[in-house]
Amino acid sequence: MIMKYAKDGLVVDEVKELAKIEETSYKKILRRIADGRIVVARNVARKDLSKIKLVGIGYGLRTKVNANIGTSMLVNDLDMEKRKLEVAIQNETDTVMDLSTGGDIDAIRRELISLSTVPFGTVPIYQAYIEAAEKKKSPIFMTEDDILSVIEKHLKDGVDFMTIHAGIRYEHIMKLKYIQRIAGIVSRGGAILAAWMYYNKAENPLYKNYDYILEMFQEYDAVISLGDALRPGAIVDAHDYFQVAELVTIAELVHRSRKANVQTMVEGPGHVPLNEVIMDIKLQKRITKGAPYYVLGPIVTDISTPYDHISAAIGAALAAAAGADFLCYLTPSEHLSLPNEEQVKLGVIATRIAAHAGDIVKYGWKAKKNDLEVAIARARQDWNKIIELAIEPKLAKAIHEQFGPQPDKGCTMCGPLCVYILLEELLKESKGSE
Amino acid sequence: MIMKYAKDGLVVDEVKELAKIEETSYKKILRRIADGRIVVARNVARKDLSKIKLVGIGYGLRTKVNANIGTSMLVNDLDMEKRKLEVAIQNETDTVMDLSTGGDIDAIRRELISLSTVPFGTVPIYQAYIEAAEKKKSPIFMTEDDILSVIEKHLKDGVDFMTIHAGIRYEHIMKLKYIQRIAGIVSRGGAILAAWMYYNKAENPLYKNYDYILEMFQEYDAVISLGDALRPGAIVDAHDYFQVAELVTIAELVHRSRKANVQTMVEGPGHVPLNEVIMDIKLQKRITKGAPYYVLGPIVTDISTPYDHISAAIGAALAAAAGADFLCYLTPSEHLSLPNEEQVKLGVIATRIAAHAGDIVKYGWKAKKNDLEVAIARARQDWNKIIELAIEPKLAKAIHEQFGPQPDKGCTMCGPLCVYILLEELLKESKGSE
Repeated sequence: MIMKYAKDGLVVDEVKELAKIEETSYKKILRRIADGRIVVARNVARKDLSKIKLVGIGYGLRTKVNANIGTSMLVNDLDMEKRKLEVAIQNETDTVMDLSTGGDIDAIRRELISLSTVPFGTVPIYQAYIEAAEKKKSPIFMTEDDILSVIEKHLKDGVDFMTIHAGIRYEHIMKLKYIQRIAGIVSRGGAILAAWMYYNKAENPLYKNYDYILEMFQEYDAVISLGDALRPGAIVDAHDYFQVAELVTIAELVHRSRKANVQTMVEGPGHVPLNEVIMDIKLQKRITKGAPYYVLGPIVTDISTPYDHISAAIGAALAAAAGADFLCYLTPSEHLSLPNEEQVKLGVIATRIAAHAGDIVKYGWKAKKNDLEVAIARARQDWNKIIELAIEPKLAKAIHEQFGPQPDKGCTMCGPLCVYILLEELLKESKGSE
Repeated sequence: MIMKYAKDGLVVDEVKELAKIEETSYKKILRRIADGRIVVARNVARKDLSKIKLVGIGYGLRTKVNANIGTSMLVNDLDMEKRKLEVAIQNETDTVMDLSTGGDIDAIRRELISLSTVPFGTVPIYQAYIEAAEKKKSPIFMTEDDILSVIEKHLKDGVDFMTIHAGIRYEHIMKLKYIQRIAGIVSRGGAILAAWMYYNKAENPLYKNYDYILEMFQEYDAVISLGDALRPGAIVDAHDYFQVAELVTIAELVHRSRKANVQTMVEGPGHVPLNEVIMDIKLQKRITKGAPYYVLGPIVTDISTPYDHISAAIGAALAAAAGADFLCYLTPSEHLSLPNEEQVKLGVIATRIAAHAGDIVKYGWKAKKNDLEVAIARARQDWNKIIELAIEPKLAKAIHEQFGPQPDKGCTMCGPLCVYILLEELLKESKGSE
């Protein structure tokens, strides 16, 4: 187990490689893995492990990006999901999560994981829910064993990280009766567990069996991602009783994970106004003593459909700058539909821009050097380089030439008035006349 | 003159109307116009003034959005510019600026201004430059009168606000020799004036003749927008000597404007890393004693072409939240090409999202109530309302139905797993079984 090894001061190959990738010292990486401030999502049961991108998530590392794919109960098209996986990886997502809820979920997961060259995550409660609905008529009759078995199956399949909604508790649900919330519970896993607890008048099975879950994760060295079932689903619900109460429980679980040497990260919101983003990150980092933080956006307004990838990029950039380690993308189809391939692409790119904007702040010169290269290429009007360094070179080239082929210098915006042509020419002239 | 009237305590109709639009008291508006903290871009020579949207820009008001249109020397298509004007207004830009540099600039400006129902801005130095290049072989031979005449012509045509690059001075240009800058001067007006000063070994005519310019603006009650000719053109140049030295000169000019009762705002960057955005706004607001601040983005990374509208939205949202009053859009074609209609649309929408995200912070409940409405519509699964309240309803509807017509409740993302269907259904079931 990488965390146990790190605590013992044992430098495994992954640590050395990660230090190289992130241009930092292996000692820093080692210390932070031991402290639970960095996780490496890498299930030992994953096939062809050497071909999977090594991704570290946490303090001092580049901000990482996740893309969600997977079928739904209404749109079950494995071919499209395979194309979405490909598009996400082509556009340089760091990880993917398969959220499939339609079709043969086991077969879909196994097919997608075999094609993924990046760490692969899932949310096992979805499958437990669907199976209980199919076999027992209602998910309310799902047993604790049903849930735990699905988790174990995903671990055996090599899933590298899993959302486990262990922070939502029976006592929280009871309070929904008298503490107002506009958007209710917007996490699917949260809604399933809330209904289950309400009907069964029992504690969250994931909380109750957390020690058993830790044992399972130990065996595969996979990463627990503590899901925020009670995240705000509207700006006006941000940082209400439920969100913060769940975070407090999650912090308890983080500390239990560390004791058990199970790598654990924490999921965050959601819908958050811009002036609460930094507070959110600082609070999570303090209360969990620096657990890697995986945020969904946050989106900073509720009115931005079908451009939620833009409002998510706004919140995510600020979150990353303030210390968030891992950004889950939103696509233009958020709140509206399952995304298609083009929307997956836009989601990954917008989130990468946010991650990079954050890294300019917290990752320093290692991030900024890309920006410097672009600035120099622009000053030299080196269009091959400008296009090559664009976040999406093909589209950049198409837009550059949208009104016809372009000369070596300048573009249709300014023509000969281009500042990089203008000043040089005028200074040449003024020198000639001296 | 509205500023003079405000100083005298005279409540003109515009002030009353503005108070109604912004849901605030006319006394606050009056006081802030008198102090120079709010401007109203409204040239008295503008035709059909009653049909032009009344737009206030400044402290305590909703953040406003500007869209740049206009021909270039390489793409001169008035019909397209007219369509871009229409698209920008349809997508609810608050103002437009005509930056035309190709074709018959006077005729284009007059045509566009006659079609614009929103305040209309220009950058007169562009025309002065083009005319000098045509008539005198080089813009270096442009006279002070040439520049001042163009300004006067624009004022007579009813232009409501104009970028005047009076803050860049001869002494700054001389220092370009020994203070390093990666991206040089990226403002076209700045590059023109720098070359002119360098060749003529003379002070910036706009600075030298600022009192005369004030007299002209007094006559038309138009707004001066002090251009930041020395804004950073790369992340690594942000807040260097040149940017801040020019801001200091601009602050001097703001104070001179107020004495002359000429409404004046200040233009800001540009390329700024996320951790310098708030500082930028606070500095401008302090040194100018609260002059309205009109920022271009700022974009928070140099690598985001062809998605600079997204990195601009990130910086602009944070800027707006921190006190920026007016956001100039960037489009996906920024740094690559003149924008087309679709790019104008994307630019306006991204910038409106940024403005709104900022207003949630500084404009309080007046902004948040839109978000609340969306959240309630989602909780009720009222899809007509959800679509209607989207920032772009037509595209939102198309995405909602991209995999076929949808049922009344839910969408293809979660199907029956939709949190708003799920919890209700499960609780119904659990009640039935009690």
